[in-house]
Amino acid sequence: MPGAYVKDLHDSAPQIISQLPSVSTVVIHVGSNDLKRQQSEKLKDDFIALINSIQSTGKKCVISGPLPAPCFGDVKFSRLRQLHVWLKAFCAAKEIPFVDNFAAFFRRPELFRRDRLHLSFSGARLLSFNMNLTLETFTEKV
Amino acid sequence: MPGAYVKDLHDSAPQIISQLPSVSTVVIHVGSNDLKRQQSEKLKDDFIALINSIQSTGKKCVISGPLPAPCFGDVKFSRLRQLHVWLKAFCAAKEIPFVDNFAAFFRRPELFRRDRLHLSFSGARLLSFNMNLTLETFTEKV
Repeated sequence: MPGAYVKDLHDSAPQIISQLPSVSTVVIHVGSNDLKRQQSEKLKDDFIALINSIQSTGKKCVISGPLPAPCFGDVKFSRLRQLHVWLKAFCAAKEIPFVDNFAAFFRRPELFRRDRLHLSFSGARLLSFNMNLTLETFTEKV
Repeated sequence: MPGAYVKDLHDSAPQIISQLPSVSTVVIHVGSNDLKRQQSEKLKDDFIALINSIQSTGKKCVISGPLPAPCFGDVKFSRLRQLHVWLKAFCAAKEIPFVDNFAAFFRRPELFRRDRLHLSFSGARLLSFNMNLTLETFTEKV
């Protein structure tokens, strides 16, 4: 959902999911549109509401963490880093599998398109690889 | 401890830790020496024993996951990938912070030395960056 905020997903996700009864697991990939709004506590609340809303549908929920795009300046990068740390901690506390993308996409402009924001083909391939690794943890006996 | 197996660490870690009373957190970085032995179930047991042994000292324990070094052939790579998935799942189940290195070091020969096994300066810097991100989750309120 290009251009969407976390809150928009919160409203629309249960409806989309209800149309896909064969789906067992929902991966939410975190974009960076919300960072413009500069309200980090509000953003956390929106995330918590979105995760609760997915989980209330009975589907397994996976969070795919933010990508540090080369177009971000110092302030936005620092905010994204903070969001990543919080999401990783939150997912660990709630036993939600977390796709850790931060170091994998850090300082790698070749993984992004010329707009330095959206993923290139090789970036999309790496994201998919990383999501698959995390999805495999579901079936792992520990 | 270059050349060490997980089991060697299990024996020596509590003694090393007891000499460092000011340390609050121990990061275990997973090497690949054990993969030569090809006993993956035994390796899992050794990891569990090592983690228990660190936790019995009262220190916080963090696991830094394996690095897919360019020198690994298909068989070793596949075994390392499996170890990564199991460790990630195990750490999530036991609420142990996990430094996810797999995608960050995947197909990046520039992060390794000429022996294609040990980290280069830039590789060591990325590993340290990734460990720091995970350590920060300890102080995050969720």
